[in-house]
Amino acid sequence: MSHCVFCAIVAGEAESSLVYEDEHTIAFMDIRPFTPGHLLVVPRAHAANLAQLDSEDGARLFRVGQRAAAALRGSTVGAGGVNFFLADGVVAGQEVFHVHLHVVPRTAGDGFGLRGRPTAPPRPDLDYLAGSIRGRLGAADA
Amino acid sequence: MSHCVFCAIVAGEAESSLVYEDEHTIAFMDIRPFTPGHLLVVPRAHAANLAQLDSEDGARLFRVGQRAAAALRGSTVGAGGVNFFLADGVVAGQEVFHVHLHVVPRTAGDGFGLRGRPTAPPRPDLDYLAGSIRGRLGAADA
Repeated sequence: MSHCVFCAIVAGEAESSLVYEDEHTIAFMDIRPFTPGHLLVVPRAHAANLAQLDSEDGARLFRVGQRAAAALRGSTVGAGGVNFFLADGVVAGQEVFHVHLHVVPRTAGDGFGLRGRPTAPPRPDLDYLAGSIRGRLGAADA
Repeated sequence: MSHCVFCAIVAGEAESSLVYEDEHTIAFMDIRPFTPGHLLVVPRAHAANLAQLDSEDGARLFRVGQRAAAALRGSTVGAGGVNFFLADGVVAGQEVFHVHLHVVPRTAGDGFGLRGRPTAPPRPDLDYLAGSIRGRLGAADA
């Protein structure tokens, strides 16, 4: 496997500001935070993307993220809200190819958020897309 | 409980374009999609926010989101990547007060993404914040 900075952090071979660790999951501060307190929740086991990620490791990311969100609200960060964000794939903005859940504490006027313009498609368009996605989900179950 | 549109969808009393359902979780198309195929994964049990959310229901959101991400890549949507997004609290952009995970398929040039400017704080600042958050996580465990 080529060098992975998150694997190096997991192995204790690269510096990090650790927030949490257990047998399967660790969390540490993002070194390029969008807001103060922005942290990452990461599976110990290397998985480049969601397709490679063990589903229980994925479930653990959410559990630890939820606990981190509560801690951020109680910490000196003083978060009034929290965003979770995950990027899967280059086109989605993924930059480190070891799955990570961003936990971003929010305060009023912090300038963070989503960029984009919601649309309002007619119901038949939504139903058509839902059918296509549902079909693929079903195929994966079979 | 006051009216909750996602509870109405769960109960079959409001229209939705359903993608997935099981005993605990449902997924349906967002009616104001950022990109075609943008869907929401929602616990059947009402929880206004992460603080109220059963941790297993949270874990299930990630599992279903991961499966939906795979389905989006295989569906007519033709996603090249996927973002997960969750807003917890008004200041974080939460608009419907029933926890929901956004699953947003991505294609090149779709205009969706994050708004904000990452900073590069010195390590001691990151360590200080990590210590504060770690302290709160530990307190929650006790």
